[in-house]
Amino acid sequence: MAFKKVKGGVCAPIGFSGGAVSCGIKDPENPRPDLALVYSKHPCVSAGTFTSNRVKAAPVKVTQAHLRARELRAIVANSGNANACTGVPGIEDARTMAKAVAATLGLRQREVGVCSTGVIGLPLPMDRMKTGLAGLADHLSARGGTEVARAIMTSDTTVKEIAISATVGGRKVRIGACSKGAGMICPSMATMLCFVTTDANISKACLQKTLLEAVEGSFNRICIDGDMSTNDTVLLLANGQSGGKPIARGSKACREFCEALQHVLLELAKACVRDGERVSKFVTLEVVGASVYLDAKKVAEAIAKSALVKSSWNGDDPNWGRIIHAIGYSRARIREELIDISYDGKPACEGGLMARTPIRTLRDIAAKDSFTITVNLHLGKADYTIYTSDISPEYIDFNRSEYSYWKNAGVD
Amino acid sequence: MAFKKVKGGVCAPIGFSGGAVSCGIKDPENPRPDLALVYSKHPCVSAGTFTSNRVKAAPVKVTQAHLRARELRAIVANSGNANACTGVPGIEDARTMAKAVAATLGLRQREVGVCSTGVIGLPLPMDRMKTGLAGLADHLSARGGTEVARAIMTSDTTVKEIAISATVGGRKVRIGACSKGAGMICPSMATMLCFVTTDANISKACLQKTLLEAVEGSFNRICIDGDMSTNDTVLLLANGQSGGKPIARGSKACREFCEALQHVLLELAKACVRDGERVSKFVTLEVVGASVYLDAKKVAEAIAKSALVKSSWNGDDPNWGRIIHAIGYSRARIREELIDISYDGKPACEGGLMARTPIRTLRDIAAKDSFTITVNLHLGKADYTIYTSDISPEYIDFNRSEYSYWKNAGVD
Repeated sequence: MAFKKVKGGVCAPIGFSGGAVSCGIKDPENPRPDLALVYSKHPCVSAGTFTSNRVKAAPVKVTQAHLRARELRAIVANSGNANACTGVPGIEDARTMAKAVAATLGLRQREVGVCSTGVIGLPLPMDRMKTGLAGLADHLSARGGTEVARAIMTSDTTVKEIAISATVGGRKVRIGACSKGAGMICPSMATMLCFVTTDANISKACLQKTLLEAVEGSFNRICIDGDMSTNDTVLLLANGQSGGKPIARGSKACREFCEALQHVLLELAKACVRDGERVSKFVTLEVVGASVYLDAKKVAEAIAKSALVKSSWNGDDPNWGRIIHAIGYSRARIREELIDISYDGKPACEGGLMARTPIRTLRDIAAKDSFTITVNLHLGKADYTIYTSDISPEYIDFNRSEYSYWKNAGVD
Repeated sequence: MAFKKVKGGVCAPIGFSGGAVSCGIKDPENPRPDLALVYSKHPCVSAGTFTSNRVKAAPVKVTQAHLRARELRAIVANSGNANACTGVPGIEDARTMAKAVAATLGLRQREVGVCSTGVIGLPLPMDRMKTGLAGLADHLSARGGTEVARAIMTSDTTVKEIAISATVGGRKVRIGACSKGAGMICPSMATMLCFVTTDANISKACLQKTLLEAVEGSFNRICIDGDMSTNDTVLLLANGQSGGKPIARGSKACREFCEALQHVLLELAKACVRDGERVSKFVTLEVVGASVYLDAKKVAEAIAKSALVKSSWNGDDPNWGRIIHAIGYSRARIREELIDISYDGKPACEGGLMARTPIRTLRDIAAKDSFTITVNLHLGKADYTIYTSDISPEYIDFNRSEYSYWKNAGVD
């Protein structure tokens, strides 16, 4: 299935608009865009997936409740403060965000999804945000996609947005999306927000199912630092403006839509890894030949989370010994003497032993910005792929302290 | 129970001797001590614990077989090469090490334990080691403890040895030990070797049980980088030379011995964390108030393995938000609104919310070389403590490449 890239990001589908303002949440003295809005002027069906962390941020709890009660038609999001571990006042603040936006758009409060990303444990600076919230709807524009993508960035260094047009059920539909990374990135939902819009006419049941499937095949397969955030949220709004009859669950059109959606999310997921905090490598890690799916997943995750493996990637070192040691503690069923490990198809380890490929050849591959490691367990037919990165001295340095946020918040 | 420190390390107990030579395993052009021997001139009972990694190094497999068949009376160990992922030839090499030592000491091959530590996947340079193995017994001395401790070091920067005398069953016994770290350190046995000797007269059953208990309370509670090695081994030899009747399992004397042994192992385990590769902090992480023991352990391990938490420790940042986010993904039963987190007893988070302790106070604690974080889940009475470290830019830098080992081994 071929997809055509189109312009406009999250505002590319018919009937969607977006915009952003600066409230000084990140830094009151040097305001940057940090409050964003996505809106459909037509009613939508909506779906969402959320962090599996048991400590959930206030906006996650509020948006989950809104999604259960109503279909979302708008999303308001701030960066610079996660509104997590903020108790009942935090819930009130998240509701206030939805209410303020709903008032200016003539919506019900529960038609607005709320997202936050940033530092944990500080109350939102609602005084600074109030003016921003009141005027936010005035900034809506059908060309506002990039503004939204930029306003949700935290430690991201690149804007992450995409839009495609695809043929679904014989009809042209558009899917647009933007997302942010870039730390606390781990399978089972990253510190990550992603907003997806589409003008496909699609049933609620089909929408929720395809979103879960597409997230499992994209955002749940990336790993930067193995830390899972309190705020991860993917929201999908579909307003049906491309026309046609609603796409039903289980239909051929539903599968086509799912494929297009997964393409969009996987592109953004990979962009998150490429923009991982101060990392330098993009590693595709394929585990094949596992007895069962869960074993393939355990092996891939153990490798992708190993500090020693990630350090060696940073050093261009084709260190298959560290990879096999991580395989050994993954708790997957393995037989050491069957394991093959290759770099871009060149064997480094065969049957659990050093292969004959010259180490220089492997090193040249490991020195590239992007390469593929394939682990074959030779036990069965299950496989799993993760997209991951190295870990760098600069990552640690970058993450040493969030103290400046606390000082800015006046709690020093 | 008070223990008196004595000199001599692993050779302190009556009848034990040790020694080491340089074979150029680490670097043929600049030989350092890398082959060590510990020996009891009297018969022993012996016990061991080994890595739970499913990829086990050849010496681990060989020593496990020897322990099942016989009581060990000697241990031969090399550093610089792990003899892991080396197949059948690796097993032969480990057996050759035991056989060579046994021949010079007049022992059976299976009375010799074999250990290796270093890089994974390379064959041992047996040609270089043969002369060393033949002459090793000539270097045995009752004052050779420190030599043994030094010869098993890899990335360690400090010698790790201890000896105590303790009163067990009304009789004075000595326990001596040495160990090495310092990377691939994780609960469930670290990349870590530890040799323990005692002149206590103790039954086999009591010895094995006390070793398992003492390792569970010491080496299994440390975490540097969350990576579990292929070679971890703790061996305990008891030659009974302090006299008296054998200490039986379940007796008061057995409990006294266990307490003394745990003291010795915990000191060495903490020394491993203090000497973690290029790290700067020693953090005692206490989880209390869990519903069940396993939940306390899950919470402690999630925090101790989080790259973001460890980075914040490196930056003197009392970032309880990152701690609570790791608690949230630990899969333990928690209630966010009950969680307290304190630094050296000063509350940072109370009931899931920011506490009132001035952030400067917390920062002063987090800036210390050593501090205690206490997490109270307020759900029950189970607790678990881990001794752990920060992660530093220097750790990553140090672990970027083992390429020089491969070059030295001539496989470039």
